[in-house]
Amino acid sequence: MMKLPLKGIIPPVVTPLIDNNKIDVRGLEKLLDYLLTGGVHGLFMLGTTGEATSLSYKLRKELLKRTGELVNHRIPVVVGITDTALDGSLEIAEYAANIGLDGVVIAPPYYMPIAQEEMWEYLEDLVPELPLPFIMYDMPVCTKMHMSVETIRKAKELGAIGVKDSSGDMSYLYSLINEFKDSPDFSIIAGTELYIPETILNGGHGAVAGGANLFPGLFVDLYNASVDRNLDKIAILRDKIMLIDSTIYNVGKNASSVIKGIKCALSVMDICNDYMAVPFRQYGKEERMKIEKYIKEFEGILN
Amino acid sequence: MMKLPLKGIIPPVVTPLIDNNKIDVRGLEKLLDYLLTGGVHGLFMLGTTGEATSLSYKLRKELLKRTGELVNHRIPVVVGITDTALDGSLEIAEYAANIGLDGVVIAPPYYMPIAQEEMWEYLEDLVPELPLPFIMYDMPVCTKMHMSVETIRKAKELGAIGVKDSSGDMSYLYSLINEFKDSPDFSIIAGTELYIPETILNGGHGAVAGGANLFPGLFVDLYNASVDRNLDKIAILRDKIMLIDSTIYNVGKNASSVIKGIKCALSVMDICNDYMAVPFRQYGKEERMKIEKYIKEFEGILN
Amino acid sequence: MMKLPLKGIIPPVVTPLIDNNKIDVRGLEKLLDYLLTGGVHGLFMLGTTGEATSLSYKLRKELLKRTGELVNHRIPVVVGITDTALDGSLEIAEYAANIGLDGVVIAPPYYMPIAQEEMWEYLEDLVPELPLPFIMYDMPVCTKMHMSVETIRKAKELGAIGVKDSSGDMSYLYSLINEFKDSPDFSIIAGTELYIPETILNGGHGAVAGGANLFPGLFVDLYNASVDRNLDKIAILRDKIMLIDSTIYNVGKNASSVIKGIKCALSVMDICNDYMAVPFRQYGKEERMKIEKYIKEFEGILN
Amino acid sequence: MMKLPLKGIIPPVVTPLIDNNKIDVRGLEKLLDYLLTGGVHGLFMLGTTGEATSLSYKLRKELLKRTGELVNHRIPVVVGITDTALDGSLEIAEYAANIGLDGVVIAPPYYMPIAQEEMWEYLEDLVPELPLPFIMYDMPVCTKMHMSVETIRKAKELGAIGVKDSSGDMSYLYSLINEFKDSPDFSIIAGTELYIPETILNGGHGAVAGGANLFPGLFVDLYNASVDRNLDKIAILRDKIMLIDSTIYNVGKNASSVIKGIKCALSVMDICNDYMAVPFRQYGKEERMKIEKYIKEFEGILN
Repeated sequence: MMKLPLKGIIPPVVTPLIDNNKIDVRGLEKLLDYLLTGGVHGLFMLGTTGEATSLSYKLRKELLKRTGELVNHRIPVVVGITDTALDGSLEIAEYAANIGLDGVVIAPPYYMPIAQEEMWEYLEDLVPELPLPFIMYDMPVCTKMHMSVETIRKAKELGAIGVKDSSGDMSYLYSLINEFKDSPDFSIIAGTELYIPETILNGGHGAVAGGANLFPGLFVDLYNASVDRNLDKIAILRDKIMLIDSTIYNVGKNASSVIKGIKCALSVMDICNDYMAVPFRQYGKEERMKIEKYIKEFEGILN
Repeated sequence: MMKLPLKGIIPPVVTPLIDNNKIDVRGLEKLLDYLLTGGVHGLFMLGTTGEATSLSYKLRKELLKRTGELVNHRIPVVVGITDTALDGSLEIAEYAANIGLDGVVIAPPYYMPIAQEEMWEYLEDLVPELPLPFIMYDMPVCTKMHMSVETIRKAKELGAIGVKDSSGDMSYLYSLINEFKDSPDFSIIAGTELYIPETILNGGHGAVAGGANLFPGLFVDLYNASVDRNLDKIAILRDKIMLIDSTIYNVGKNASSVIKGIKCALSVMDICNDYMAVPFRQYGKEERMKIEKYIKEFEGILN
Repeated sequence: MMKLPLKGIIPPVVTPLIDNNKIDVRGLEKLLDYLLTGGVHGLFMLGTTGEATSLSYKLRKELLKRTGELVNHRIPVVVGITDTALDGSLEIAEYAANIGLDGVVIAPPYYMPIAQEEMWEYLEDLVPELPLPFIMYDMPVCTKMHMSVETIRKAKELGAIGVKDSSGDMSYLYSLINEFKDSPDFSIIAGTELYIPETILNGGHGAVAGGANLFPGLFVDLYNASVDRNLDKIAILRDKIMLIDSTIYNVGKNASSVIKGIKCALSVMDICNDYMAVPFRQYGKEERMKIEKYIKEFEGILN
Repeated sequence: MMKLPLKGIIPPVVTPLIDNNKIDVRGLEKLLDYLLTGGVHGLFMLGTTGEATSLSYKLRKELLKRTGELVNHRIPVVVGITDTALDGSLEIAEYAANIGLDGVVIAPPYYMPIAQEEMWEYLEDLVPELPLPFIMYDMPVCTKMHMSVETIRKAKELGAIGVKDSSGDMSYLYSLINEFKDSPDFSIIAGTELYIPETILNGGHGAVAGGANLFPGLFVDLYNASVDRNLDKIAILRDKIMLIDSTIYNVGKNASSVIKGIKCALSVMDICNDYMAVPFRQYGKEERMKIEKYIKEFEGILN
């Protein structure tokens, strides 16, 4: 059983790939080893950064299986099960339960726009079938739906153990913290890595930070500094995180550029392959050279 | 081989369901029979109205198999293969080819926002694997992407045989007609049923009209009146179509209300069951009574 | 008194300027003469294309005065009075009435977003003070508000004599035509020049077409062909209008590019100066050369 | 001369009105006295909360004159000059300079959507004419334009002394703080009152907080606690501010509801009249009763 509330730095792990149908197994091992050595508190597999929706179900399961074996219960592993079809969500949830992973993460079905009330009905249908604890995931840029605080409250009544907010909307994040302040076991998890200190200082519990794939120790340090309320240290560490944002995440200008940048940087750092699943493509030579330059500049600064 | 250009009224067929895992087989038979008797020129299975993204792959295949058998090549059947993962799209495309259906329909992968250039790359990866002719499908409300005319042109260079425009943006539809006016075999198909006359009068080829599930003859008449450039008849028929819009489609106020309304009306008309796949639910008693009243009022007017 | 319903081609007249504080008087004379010779049915001064919101009240009044004198009641002149402050709207409305112009045009106050109900309250405050007949103006790209059909109906109850729809949303335009089909004196006027035939063929009355500043005869011909229901002629004329759209309006890529293109083309055609009021600037050398090339190509085609 | 950087709590002062053409002079006196007694560090007149764009120029000037006399240089007074026409902006700027006020505040012209490059050109035209120091004001909900960090940097090169960020986008606020961290005299001012601690803790300078009209002492306390880095006190005070947000600001559901709520509460507190300038209307009996109840509950808590 996962200890509640889930807290700390929980990277949305990228999915190392050789090609569209093949896990980069050696890369996955190195990456997971790197993250655990870096001190992260949990792992979020098959999230947006993990390119979940681009992967076949066969590949998703293989990724989970290998991850479960490699992590071996040292830290909790939660799994994105978002799909537009119920049976797809349940297939992954059941698989995750069977191999002993710890929880699942649910975003709204993301093809047809759905209303808040329709989301409640969806949860009423989905939740009774879930074999694992679940976390709600607000990701309006991808799902077109910004779940209201009321929707999250209803999810909690149905059993949700937390919420991950990737809306980028700090007012909303504060509303969530405020709404659930009397439920200390309900995790409020920031999906915007820049907001880690605010989240922790104000009563939240952790962060799903894509950049923690690259510099896990840096994000763990920022989390710890936030827990310690060490404002001077927070200021120094946040500057470093803003540096990643303005460099590696901004080599391209598309929504996919953050993931492309992280994967390319991991490849430059010789941790795993940078292949992107269809419909995306990894960065070409020109972008990679920029990333190489950045990684070189960061040596000794960000690690 | 499907005759090009694809033209006429091509209903986006609803998927009759008993429950989330079971086709309403009797309903499907009655519906397809009703549509063919109504004179429609083709069928679009597994579109937005068909709730494709909510259905399991097993159910999608069963639907296609039964449809293929029932239609038996009397009119062309095209199949939506949109998915966020490449292998899902190909699985359905190959199945459709194996059972002798006529073409596939492609919308952009719809989880992560993708840029026009990324869509081109996606098509370069997808198209060579397709075993059937393909039609592009612009549906920004669901996919978050409004494909540029340039993107459609690139798709055509890769082999696309047409485009279905469900953007609701008539200027865009006219731009498409204008762009491809020298390619008489490339179908310009309206996805907004109100725009059928404009599409046909100005050089387009047909319409994927959800309302044709309910009143196929009415839409076929409007198509024919448009081909005949009979403006008086067009005016009368369009008024009828606006009546459907302001009644059956507007019982609810969500994006899903059009499909819920069509399914409920089909149930009232005793054609098929109104079960909606998860995440949606069919209309309750109150909404159904409104629809019953509308259908009664329309008797002799819309049929 | 203006004859109702207002109909035909009513250009949103550009405001010829020498600099930010000075009308290009000679240009205004030539432009108005050009438009009347071209056969337009009315003039809309101080609209979006007329850069109304960028002009000082002194300049707005001078423009109206000179226009009134030059037109001398040969065709109706309506005047945009949209402002964020009530007294500004009334100041122009009263001035227009005093110098004998024919009507005013009202868009929602455009700073703070306002709700439909707030718009009704606004009309209740504004309308009793108006000294002239008024037309509603839907322009969501600039005002952030897409007035509902219900809002337009309430405006009509308060005395509105028509509505100009610049939303670009043809479904909305058809809803307006449908809503007011039993009020033959209430003008439905298209603000999207591409939709002139649809508007007229389906029961609307006219168009406020920016391109009519450049080629008034072409737009009058298209209006007449639409009234005559001459589909072949419509097709030919609409192609010409699409040519303007894909050339002169698209030299730049900003919202202001249409007006900049029209003013630059008018300058190339030696009709009036191309100065743009602050905050905008007229096209530079490079853009002007493109427009010169286009105008040259159009000779004998568009005139 | 205003001391730089401008910092602290700078309420966007509401404009007390008797009717659409008349200042509530007694109310203005009481309000300004209340704010100065409450310890605010500056005043922002004619902002969004001050309903600037709804007021006639005559009224705007009277408001400034009376405010200048009443404040009498005890704290800096800055003045919104945003207009869609250059001469309107300059008229207020010159008036403010003539009566000895301290600075002006500039948002983008807000009718026609303008591009970043067009904003730079606008500033090049406007700034040389300004008789007072100026602050940039990012308010995309009203102006439709989210000024890029690059645009703010260009404004600074032209002489801007600060920026007020009302975008609600904390990532943007942090980008601004980061961009100008080596310019200690350039003020970074939060326009979202919930973000006061983050702004101050991370290197920003102050806040334009609408709620400070109601509870100036509370906001000054929060500012001071933030300067003192007293996290426990910040937590307590922020909870109080969230209470205002979830009550007084949320009686209505429109964009105008915040201002209506503040004015109504000020009237309940017997400070000034609650008349709203056209196009808005003050709250009716029902909403006022809710506000009365809230204010009663807050006694002893928020003051």
